[in-house]
Amino acid sequence: MNQDDYNALRARIERAYAPATFDKHGQTAVALMAEFLNGSQHSANAVLNWRAPTSNIEEAQALLNDGADVGELIQAIFAHGQTIHDPRYMGHQVPAPVPMSALFEAVSSLSNQGMTVYEMGPWSSAVERVMMQTLGEQLGLTPGFGGILTSGGSIANLTALLTARNIALQGTWANGISEGRDKAVIVAHGESHYSVERAAGILGMGTHNCLKAALDEHSKIDVAKLDEQLHSLRAQGKTVIAVVAAACSTRTGSYDPLRAIARVCKAHQVWLHVDAAHGAAAAFSDDYRHYLEGIEEADSVVWDAHKMLFMPALSTYLFYRKSANQYQALNQSASYLFDANAMLSEQYNTGLGTLECTKRAAAFSLWATWAVHGKQLFADLVNITYGMARTFARHMLQHPHFQLLNEPEANVLVFRYVPSALRGADAGVIGAFQVGLRKRLIESGEFYIVPAVDRGHQALRMVIMNPLTSEAEFAGLSAALQRHAEQMLAQN
Amino acid sequence: MNQDDYNALRARIERAYAPATFDKHGQTAVALMAEFLNGSQHSANAVLNWRAPTSNIEEAQALLNDGADVGELIQAIFAHGQTIHDPRYMGHQVPAPVPMSALFEAVSSLSNQGMTVYEMGPWSSAVERVMMQTLGEQLGLTPGFGGILTSGGSIANLTALLTARNIALQGTWANGISEGRDKAVIVAHGESHYSVERAAGILGMGTHNCLKAALDEHSKIDVAKLDEQLHSLRAQGKTVIAVVAAACSTRTGSYDPLRAIARVCKAHQVWLHVDAAHGAAAAFSDDYRHYLEGIEEADSVVWDAHKMLFMPALSTYLFYRKSANQYQALNQSASYLFDANAMLSEQYNTGLGTLECTKRAAAFSLWATWAVHGKQLFADLVNITYGMARTFARHMLQHPHFQLLNEPEANVLVFRYVPSALRGADAGVIGAFQVGLRKRLIESGEFYIVPAVDRGHQALRMVIMNPLTSEAEFAGLSAALQRHAEQMLAQN
Repeated sequence: MNQDDYNALRARIERAYAPATFDKHGQTAVALMAEFLNGSQHSANAVLNWRAPTSNIEEAQALLNDGADVGELIQAIFAHGQTIHDPRYMGHQVPAPVPMSALFEAVSSLSNQGMTVYEMGPWSSAVERVMMQTLGEQLGLTPGFGGILTSGGSIANLTALLTARNIALQGTWANGISEGRDKAVIVAHGESHYSVERAAGILGMGTHNCLKAALDEHSKIDVAKLDEQLHSLRAQGKTVIAVVAAACSTRTGSYDPLRAIARVCKAHQVWLHVDAAHGAAAAFSDDYRHYLEGIEEADSVVWDAHKMLFMPALSTYLFYRKSANQYQALNQSASYLFDANAMLSEQYNTGLGTLECTKRAAAFSLWATWAVHGKQLFADLVNITYGMARTFARHMLQHPHFQLLNEPEANVLVFRYVPSALRGADAGVIGAFQVGLRKRLIESGEFYIVPAVDRGHQALRMVIMNPLTSEAEFAGLSAALQRHAEQMLAQN
Repeated sequence: MNQDDYNALRARIERAYAPATFDKHGQTAVALMAEFLNGSQHSANAVLNWRAPTSNIEEAQALLNDGADVGELIQAIFAHGQTIHDPRYMGHQVPAPVPMSALFEAVSSLSNQGMTVYEMGPWSSAVERVMMQTLGEQLGLTPGFGGILTSGGSIANLTALLTARNIALQGTWANGISEGRDKAVIVAHGESHYSVERAAGILGMGTHNCLKAALDEHSKIDVAKLDEQLHSLRAQGKTVIAVVAAACSTRTGSYDPLRAIARVCKAHQVWLHVDAAHGAAAAFSDDYRHYLEGIEEADSVVWDAHKMLFMPALSTYLFYRKSANQYQALNQSASYLFDANAMLSEQYNTGLGTLECTKRAAAFSLWATWAVHGKQLFADLVNITYGMARTFARHMLQHPHFQLLNEPEANVLVFRYVPSALRGADAGVIGAFQVGLRKRLIESGEFYIVPAVDRGHQALRMVIMNPLTSEAEFAGLSAALQRHAEQMLAQN
């Protein structure tokens, strides 16, 4: 390239990278974000801005092609999305994040300190280490624990089960699964998150070898039956890679009896993995900490900061009871990264334990939010959302149309809305009604709740993931469901 | 909880979520980010702020405990990290991101539209779809392609190879790998990214069954030898899950001859996976597009936007030549998400193809940067960095102390610095000298380059990942290496 071409090119690059332009765009972005936050908190617009995918795709394509400006693009994102900050959002387990966290995500992105090796993110590696230690202590883990930060609960469950597989089936990492189908199994909470069964498929064990542990009537692992199951599997010559317990379970938010499960696993010398992606945050609350009793006996624990610590996705802490086990997941050299002449102990090179090579500096938000607000905020967030689920449950029990299907331990409610006209109807009819009702409700943009299945039939589910959701929202939801139900019945 | 307790709790939550506070913190953050950008671009401070991990951990811990404010915390992140925006950064394949992208990461985080199912992120799903389509077309893929956005190149390689495994070994997903060790193999570029070998370990095939394809003297797959290898493996009764080609290779940035490799794979009916995490961006450049010829014949292709599209980590596009293959990776139902009564075609539920359940809305940055700057910016970024590597190579060839070890196709240079006093010394001695030299250099904070191994001995490596890196930086690096080399020699 000649000098003139280079100069022109360089000038265009300098424009795109200009600090002054960034500053101007930054002002715009902050103002729009503050406005969005304010509007959302006051339910100024729809919760879910429902449109068919093709309409959204067409508009996103048009904005891409038409040289939109920064402000227009941000407004489009807010106008057409799911509005998690609206207190009428009561959907999946994705929180309305503490707003300041978004600023630290920007700082993280701009500085782009990718880790893998310590050199690439000396500060992000240090902050990750501090938050790993701090959260582990909050959880009551025993000194000597370790862990890594990774991109989501599903990937963390996979990583933990990979570790358990490599330990239970020595030589598998290098040589592959050698004994053929149906020897190695996982025994998981009967309603464990889908990523657990997927992990069995990914790891070469097969999803059919992810066996369900029997549950009691509260959707908790039945400990006596687990013990029997492990005995029986041993008698059949099976190797149990791991037992997977839930704290709490995805569908209903129920916490497994961890102490008793740990005792059974210890007796059978089986790895205990606890998927506490959602529920580990109870460790911050004097009222709810007891649900986690025994978690320190687990061999591995998953905790999503992007659930009940109200951080943006994705930021998952995977703990190992024994720090050294984190190196059993992935055991390999890469000379250009983890070289033999490393400047320091490999324990600071986070990439040795993560599926990711380049990784986002995902711990800054939590670290900063904790530093500014103290850990009281995390206790408050758990207490207000878990408490509100109990308040909602009380209202449901008193309301003639709500059928509450779980006794909430966390902030999850499973229920059906059954107007008088449908009382006594066939379960399939009532189930189908829930699907239709939810469709109307969410397309209206008034509230956002999600589907569930209970005892084979459709139901509704909500998770209080916005700490600003209050009793007023219950009243509004109740009225909206009644109105939509009446319209549906009138149309039939 | 009684009403007074609730009110106090609610008041604390409202303070943490107050739009006005967010606005104030946002102003601070934007000003500090602009200042950091400006300082970095002018090399105002160290590139790598080198300190031992324990010092950083202690300070991060102290800031957490001492109730630091937002400004202090941001300054700590900038002061103690790796300064990718400094043009003297020439390290691993992590770019100085286009600054405006950081603002869209903040917008993404604040609105936290997690996808998995379309409802949870109607706009983020649409934008992902648009960028998938747009990048695929830019790459020259044939209509009918599809794909997903995921958390990094390593996870994308794993996902693609999982798909290939499930297709080659029917029934493996459900039943596990049944045939025992040493039957199923992967044949990968002899210097493929470490995630490829790891994938064999994770997928239950065993890392020993990740075989190396022979390379020619330019670190490219030798096509004739690949053909022989595939013949020989078939004769041995092996099932080749996939051939993995590099575009470009991690260590040297060399592009494999994709058209010829695709022809061989087709003849053997073997899945071709192209790891184009780094090099796919050449598709934007009239000068370098030819390196990718034949990529449209690959069955799967990985492209990291957080490499040569200069976006923040993590944002990886995984393409499948046949759109339907994306559903072969993970095949499972989760009634509370992907229910039979889904409101729309499952093709819009991105979680069906990703290892993640909740996922970050990671396409906004690229979409917005493209909309504002047009695709010319991406051509410019490739042209200036690939071009600068050639300029650096020319200078090295003219310099008596530099030994250039590759002929750069991308923006990667592998070299040794050998002062006159060491000429003719033992290769091991020269290798050890590279390690010592790099340690001094990077601890000085003057430049950041990385280690490599070439023909069994230590070498140095740089990747031009900052588009503002210019010939002035080569002169500075050269002078710094000379100074440190002289000091090392004087101390011996």
